[in-house]
Amino acid sequence: MYAPGDVRVVDREDPKIIEPTDAVIRLTATCICGSDLWPYRGVEPVDHTVMGHEYVGVVEEIGSDVHSLKVGDFVVGSFCISDNTCEICRAGYQSKCVHGSFVAGTQSELARIPYANGTLVATPAMPEPELIPSLLAASDVLGTGWFAADAAAAGPGKTVAVVGDGAVGLMGVLAAKQLGAERIIAMSRHADRQALAREFGATDIVETRGDEGVAAIKELTNGLGAHGVIEAVGTQESMMQAINSTRPGGHVGYVGVAHDGVTLPADQLFFAEVHLLGGPAPVRRFLPDLIDRIWDRTIDPGKVFDLTLPLDQADEGYRAMDERRAIKTLLTL
Amino acid sequence: MYAPGDVRVVDREDPKIIEPTDAVIRLTATCICGSDLWPYRGVEPVDHTVMGHEYVGVVEEIGSDVHSLKVGDFVVGSFCISDNTCEICRAGYQSKCVHGSFVAGTQSELARIPYANGTLVATPAMPEPELIPSLLAASDVLGTGWFAADAAAAGPGKTVAVVGDGAVGLMGVLAAKQLGAERIIAMSRHADRQALAREFGATDIVETRGDEGVAAIKELTNGLGAHGVIEAVGTQESMMQAINSTRPGGHVGYVGVAHDGVTLPADQLFFAEVHLLGGPAPVRRFLPDLIDRIWDRTIDPGKVFDLTLPLDQADEGYRAMDERRAIKTLLTL
Repeated sequence: MYAPGDVRVVDREDPKIIEPTDAVIRLTATCICGSDLWPYRGVEPVDHTVMGHEYVGVVEEIGSDVHSLKVGDFVVGSFCISDNTCEICRAGYQSKCVHGSFVAGTQSELARIPYANGTLVATPAMPEPELIPSLLAASDVLGTGWFAADAAAAGPGKTVAVVGDGAVGLMGVLAAKQLGAERIIAMSRHADRQALAREFGATDIVETRGDEGVAAIKELTNGLGAHGVIEAVGTQESMMQAINSTRPGGHVGYVGVAHDGVTLPADQLFFAEVHLLGGPAPVRRFLPDLIDRIWDRTIDPGKVFDLTLPLDQADEGYRAMDERRAIKTLLTL
Repeated sequence: MYAPGDVRVVDREDPKIIEPTDAVIRLTATCICGSDLWPYRGVEPVDHTVMGHEYVGVVEEIGSDVHSLKVGDFVVGSFCISDNTCEICRAGYQSKCVHGSFVAGTQSELARIPYANGTLVATPAMPEPELIPSLLAASDVLGTGWFAADAAAAGPGKTVAVVGDGAVGLMGVLAAKQLGAERIIAMSRHADRQALAREFGATDIVETRGDEGVAAIKELTNGLGAHGVIEAVGTQESMMQAINSTRPGGHVGYVGVAHDGVTLPADQLFFAEVHLLGGPAPVRRFLPDLIDRIWDRTIDPGKVFDLTLPLDQADEGYRAMDERRAIKTLLTL
C-alpha cells in the first residue's frame, strides 16, 4: 500500500530463512482484512507498507531449529507470531507472546514466518480445494470471532449479542453457535449480512444501533441484557453499545481494533459490572480445534468470503470492501 | 452529614416496617467507609444525608413475608439490598439485583432493611463480642476485598498485586491469601499499613506508584506483570497502574469507586489484553462463607479497625480517617 487508497501488486525480493526458527511458505491463498481498511482509509499511517497477515500455504523451506513441520506440509498460521512455549503462550495468550510480533506481508506468493514451530499448525494432509477458504478464515477472522465468543462466555443456555456485521462479527455468530449458545442476536442493517448471520446460527436480528439497539437487546432479554456480547467494530459507539447491552455479571468480548480517542468512562463501566476481555485474538490457542472442525466439515467459515480475485487484482479487492460491496475478499495465487 | 466536613449525630424517627419483606434491626456496631469520605471531602454532593451502609445487629421486628430470619437473630447484611432470587442474584451479582438499591443510614441505632430474606444472613448463634468487628467488616470491606480478589482470579500459584492500602486493599490482601495466592504484593508507602498488609498475608511491599510502581511489579514477576491485580482506589492513576501491572491474559478486579472523569483509553486496554471486572461488590454471594471463616477463627478481618469510638463521636471518626490518622473507624452503640 503506497498510500491510503493506493494498493499496487509489485515484485519484491523472495523471502529467505534468516533465523533458524523461521519457515518460508508458498501461499495457497490470502485475503484482505477489515483492519487493512484502516490504513486504506487513512485512519492509520501507511507508506509503501507490505500488506496482509492472513495466510495458508505449503512449507517451502525451514530453518535448522524447526522440528514441528517439514517441507511440503500444508500449514495455517495465526496473524500473531508466537513461540507457543513462553508463560504467556502456555496460559493461552499467544497474541501477547514474549517473542511476539504481527505477521506482515502475506498478500504475496511467499512469506517468511518467524517462530514457525509455535506459529504454524500443519493440517492432517493436503486439503481438498473447497476447504481452502475455511482454513484461510481460521488464520484470523474465524479465530478472532472465536476468541470474542469465548471471552463473551458463549455457551449452553446463554444469549449472545453480536455488535458488528463484518467478517469478524459473522464469525462470532458462528463461534457462539458452535460453543452452544441458545440464542444469538446479530446486530445488522444489511440484508445480505443478516442472511449470512442466520446461516451461521443467528436466531434474532436487531437493526437499530446505539441506545435504541441497547433497548432492543434488553427487550429480547427480559430487561436484563444479553449474557454475553461480542464487540467487532472498535468505535466509541460500538463499545458502549456492547457494554450497555450486557447484563450485570455478563461478559463482553471485544475484538474490534480500538483506535486512538475511544475511551471507556470508568464510572459507567463500574456500575455496569460486566466482565471485559479483548485485544488481538490468540488465534493459535484455537487453531488445532478450528482445523479439526473445518476438516470434518462441521463448520464452513469460508462462506464469509463473498468476493474472490486473483492476487494481481488486490486493488479491486480493497475497493470492494471499502465500498461495502464485499464482506471479505479472498485472493488466489 | 449536613454538608462536606459537617457530620452530626441527631435524633431521627425510629424506622418501621413498611413492606412485608422488611426487617428492622438494632445495630450492635457500625462503621465509617472510605467511600463516605467522598462526600465528606466535597467530591460527591451531600446535603443533610443519612450516612452509613455497613452493619451488624439483632433483628428487632420483621414483616409478614420474612421467613429466613426471626426476631432476636444476629445478622450481617450486605451494603446492597438484594432479593437473592432474581436471575442476576442467582448468577452471583446481588449488588445488581433487579430489586436492588444501596443501604443508607446505618450509622444509627436502628435501621430498616428491605428484602430482608435476601439481604441479611443470620449467624449460627449470638457472636462472642470479639467477633463483632470481623462480622462488621464482612458487611462491606471484607466482602468487597474478597470480590476484588475473586475477580483478580487469586488462587494457588498466582501472584497478586494490590493497588491501594486502605481498608478494602488490606482486605484484598487477606482474601488473596485465603484464596491461596502464592505471592501477594501490597503497594503501600505507609509503615503501619505495610505492617497490617504483611499480617494479612502480603509477601512483598512496593512503595512506588504510577509507571515506577508498574516497573517494580514487572521486576518482581520476570517482566510479565502480576497474574491478578486488585484495584482499590478508583482514580485515573490507580486504574492505569492496575491495568499496566497485569500480565496479558491476567485479571484486574477493581472496586475503588470510579468517579466522573476517570476514563480508560480503549486502545491501551485492547493491547493490554487483560480481564477486567469490577463494580459494587456482590457481598451477599460471599457472606455465608465469610461468616463461617470468621466464626471458626480462620480469619480476623476486624483488625482493619484501628479506631473505635462511640457513635456520638462519629464526627471525630470521619476526621481521623480524612486525615489518615485511622484506616477505618468502628462506631459502638
